[in-house]
Amino acid sequence: MKSQVVTFLIKCPDQKGLVAKITSFFFEKGFNILSCQQYVNSIEDKYFMRIRLNADGTEISKKELEENFMELAEPLQFKWSVNYGDKKQNVAIMVSHTSHNLYDLLERHREGSLVCNIKMIISNHDKLRPIADMFGIPYHYLPVTKSTKQEQESQVINLLDANEIDLIIMARYMQILSSNFINHYPDKIINIHHSFLPAFQGANPYKRAYDRGVKLIGATAHYATEDLDEGPIIEQDVEPVTHESTLKTLKRIGADIERLVLARAVKSHLQNQIIVSGNKAIVFPEAGE
Amino acid sequence: MKSQVVTFLIKCPDQKGLVAKITSFFFEKGFNILSCQQYVNSIEDKYFMRIRLNADGTEISKKELEENFMELAEPLQFKWSVNYGDKKQNVAIMVSHTSHNLYDLLERHREGSLVCNIKMIISNHDKLRPIADMFGIPYHYLPVTKSTKQEQESQVINLLDANEIDLIIMARYMQILSSNFINHYPDKIINIHHSFLPAFQGANPYKRAYDRGVKLIGATAHYATEDLDEGPIIEQDVEPVTHESTLKTLKRIGADIERLVLARAVKSHLQNQIIVSGNKAIVFPEAGE
Amino acid sequence: MKSQVVTFLIKCPDQKGLVAKITSFFFEKGFNILSCQQYVNSIEDKYFMRIRLNADGTEISKKELEENFMELAEPLQFKWSVNYGDKKQNVAIMVSHTSHNLYDLLERHREGSLVCNIKMIISNHDKLRPIADMFGIPYHYLPVTKSTKQEQESQVINLLDANEIDLIIMARYMQILSSNFINHYPDKIINIHHSFLPAFQGANPYKRAYDRGVKLIGATAHYATEDLDEGPIIEQDVEPVTHESTLKTLKRIGADIERLVLARAVKSHLQNQIIVSGNKAIVFPEAGE
Amino acid sequence: MKSQVVTFLIKCPDQKGLVAKITSFFFEKGFNILSCQQYVNSIEDKYFMRIRLNADGTEISKKELEENFMELAEPLQFKWSVNYGDKKQNVAIMVSHTSHNLYDLLERHREGSLVCNIKMIISNHDKLRPIADMFGIPYHYLPVTKSTKQEQESQVINLLDANEIDLIIMARYMQILSSNFINHYPDKIINIHHSFLPAFQGANPYKRAYDRGVKLIGATAHYATEDLDEGPIIEQDVEPVTHESTLKTLKRIGADIERLVLARAVKSHLQNQIIVSGNKAIVFPEAGE
Repeated sequence: MKSQVVTFLIKCPDQKGLVAKITSFFFEKGFNILSCQQYVNSIEDKYFMRIRLNADGTEISKKELEENFMELAEPLQFKWSVNYGDKKQNVAIMVSHTSHNLYDLLERHREGSLVCNIKMIISNHDKLRPIADMFGIPYHYLPVTKSTKQEQESQVINLLDANEIDLIIMARYMQILSSNFINHYPDKIINIHHSFLPAFQGANPYKRAYDRGVKLIGATAHYATEDLDEGPIIEQDVEPVTHESTLKTLKRIGADIERLVLARAVKSHLQNQIIVSGNKAIVFPEAGE
Repeated sequence: MKSQVVTFLIKCPDQKGLVAKITSFFFEKGFNILSCQQYVNSIEDKYFMRIRLNADGTEISKKELEENFMELAEPLQFKWSVNYGDKKQNVAIMVSHTSHNLYDLLERHREGSLVCNIKMIISNHDKLRPIADMFGIPYHYLPVTKSTKQEQESQVINLLDANEIDLIIMARYMQILSSNFINHYPDKIINIHHSFLPAFQGANPYKRAYDRGVKLIGATAHYATEDLDEGPIIEQDVEPVTHESTLKTLKRIGADIERLVLARAVKSHLQNQIIVSGNKAIVFPEAGE
Repeated sequence: MKSQVVTFLIKCPDQKGLVAKITSFFFEKGFNILSCQQYVNSIEDKYFMRIRLNADGTEISKKELEENFMELAEPLQFKWSVNYGDKKQNVAIMVSHTSHNLYDLLERHREGSLVCNIKMIISNHDKLRPIADMFGIPYHYLPVTKSTKQEQESQVINLLDANEIDLIIMARYMQILSSNFINHYPDKIINIHHSFLPAFQGANPYKRAYDRGVKLIGATAHYATEDLDEGPIIEQDVEPVTHESTLKTLKRIGADIERLVLARAVKSHLQNQIIVSGNKAIVFPEAGE
Repeated sequence: MKSQVVTFLIKCPDQKGLVAKITSFFFEKGFNILSCQQYVNSIEDKYFMRIRLNADGTEISKKELEENFMELAEPLQFKWSVNYGDKKQNVAIMVSHTSHNLYDLLERHREGSLVCNIKMIISNHDKLRPIADMFGIPYHYLPVTKSTKQEQESQVINLLDANEIDLIIMARYMQILSSNFINHYPDKIINIHHSFLPAFQGANPYKRAYDRGVKLIGATAHYATEDLDEGPIIEQDVEPVTHESTLKTLKRIGADIERLVLARAVKSHLQNQIIVSGNKAIVFPEAGE
């Protein structure tokens, strides 16, 4: 594990001594603790930790580390995951007609600010194929009709699973996914909704924002769950608008918010900054990384 | 009208030549046009103007000006109002338990940034009387129960009308006003709602924001209409929050947003910057004033 | 001029009756006034107007319109320009090593939110050629050394003039341009500076921001003038940072600000929203366009 | 120490095992760790920790705790402080002519969001005494001229020391303090500067912002150090302005920023969230408190 940054994400019932026990465990194994972030939800008595380790001072194997950690984790009822930083995550992007989020993600990936393998773009339309071609990413056109919806989803699942996809980004994919699909990828689907949720859930949020005469519009990135637009919120932002802002203006300003919000959410996910708890996302800030 | 800033607010069906006709009218009467702001809603074919005039170059009387203006206004179907800037507006503030908006408005008034006469504070509780006393504003304690609601509203209306109140500010007044009351003061009641409307309409918005796990919280100032929290939005703002933010933190951060949002909305109203059209508020920006 | 949006930008000494005279002129010629925005600088006694016209109701030719307008303009000392909306502006982008602004501009152009002809990319390095190729834009590699600086600038000027370039965007072009070059293109060069000017003028702004321990970083788009980073500011924005933000983090967050700020400034320029007056840029907001 | 929240602030050279050693120390003494925030500056090899403890599970005395902690702290070269949460900090506010920050601080104190004892207001003018009277705070008028500057500062120091003042807030106190004064209260004087530092250091920042034509104005709260406006920055914020914004408008918008920025900085200081390191302030966010 030399020169790697190992990240553990832990959630468990709150109890005395957790931070001492966990940090002592890693210290005794020879790790240097790069950062240690915790959050205590004192209403629900839950404890959350994100701890990043430098493995340079230890000879321990992954297997041994995990076996040893299990001995700590079980009596304290940890739910935990570990990322060894030695393998980029595999990502699939799903789109329909709208291109700005797709462009933005591909550009950030190309520039090195989103570290992952973008393995494929999947769309129910053929429209955005030229962008995939520009960036040299495989494009899968899988059209969907009411009668073929279930079959199309099966095709998508097959593609995702065959490519060992770790994260699915719905970058303005305008189809409602079935519960079956969603539950196949828990906390692994990030959706961008083009409103400041919970305002304007569902269809046509910009039109409804225009009709309501709001003075700010927003966007929300969240994990997709069975309840449409109800999943854990990762990131939100807004921009001011005025009475002069036409629907077209709202969409243009909104596109800029969508870009930033989705990119930030994806980055937080790829950097193992997020722990989901119920319908909330605990998003630890970057810690000098 | 010497040395006065006269402000006309005009709305009418859109048609060719409006700005030329209106500005020529005032130019010919000898006014200097300080600023002329317009907005064309091309979907609804409506035209809106806010025009500020310096009266130094004219001897015309108010009566003559208005009679002359009528001749222009009628064929073009203007709905219009004029403010001669020679009389501060009379304001009443309604509160319940929460004091931060009240303090803020009184301080801004004291410092000269809200130019008006704060004639009275009306409350259904006696709790905030000491603040009224600090600032030397009359405080009317008019308690309300289910059975006395109608009677209490009548008392409030009597107070407001006896004092020729031009603007009613509901600075966290936690009673739902009857349609009768609302319709008595069209476009003259400004309410602060402690959420980013239309999210979290109704009761306990901070609690619901906490439960939903939003990453931004907001506040909205709007004109009160019969439909609760559905009136024309004047001003909105938000601040970021995190998973660490407790309900208490949300309320504290929210209080800062509420202060700014309500103060800005009141200032825009007092400076005759707002024209209401349907359920929307056209808020012209300050024009060098 | 059928179906065109004609935009006049006017600046002149402030005087009574300007808006009436100008709007009456266009009304009498048969134009419909889509929007009329003005700004009076009462300290300097200067008047500024941006007026957008729909030409559908008039048969007047450009030549006749301009000749007639001259009769109004001369006695009132107008400095003015007109854009007939019938020809996209020609744009050149100058870059060095950094690609995020280039990607962003090309993407917005491709998506239709920046309406112009991007005729060429000019660089003192060959590094970003692949991006030009992706988007099918000619790329001119014109290296520069101390001894060849003057010659290289001549080559750039030749290229720009041969292609009738209307706007030069310095999208992180890291060479200081000579006064000769700058004065060749007055109010036609937009530069992005990666700080919140006037803080951190000159080199290495992110490093200096890091060293100073600021809690916000920013970016500024401005017209290039002889005094480095002193030109009229068009657009600025900031984002919060913390003590945890490394220099790398500042650069990454900064890149997002640079993208938005430069794109907004370019859009405002292309839409004829800007009048330069001394070292300030008057940027009229979009008016329902 | 029952029911108290004890906060330790620690800085030391970075080294392996720090978090494990520190948290184990407190765990073994019987404390419950409410939050544990750390920051590693890997460029300067420095380590910083803020740790909040609940003392309910321990019988240890303050004296014993500190003696024991010294044994840990010395070999690891800690610089540290502890706050037992059992005594409100004593605060003095220094002002000159401008009242908005004073009002704001007094109101927040009154409402309970700034938890401290405001022991006195000191001013070189008598102008703001009525505000002190409204809120029932002693007001000390200590005028200053060039020749009496040193003497006046001695009077101020005597007042502050006689009242055991822990924090001095310069809420628009428009006198430059001597090095002698500043060094008497290291990291204990918070100043509000009415610009986005390092832009517009020194006098008349709003005038200079107006002259420069910036599109955002800001405010900065920082610890006062010998170099004017060069001290560690605690908090900064900005608001957009336009070409329409007059100097008066900048001051009014700026006052709102100053209020928020100073109040947030004071709150962070009072809640022991800040560690100063060189010319930077490490400001830990609230941790569920």
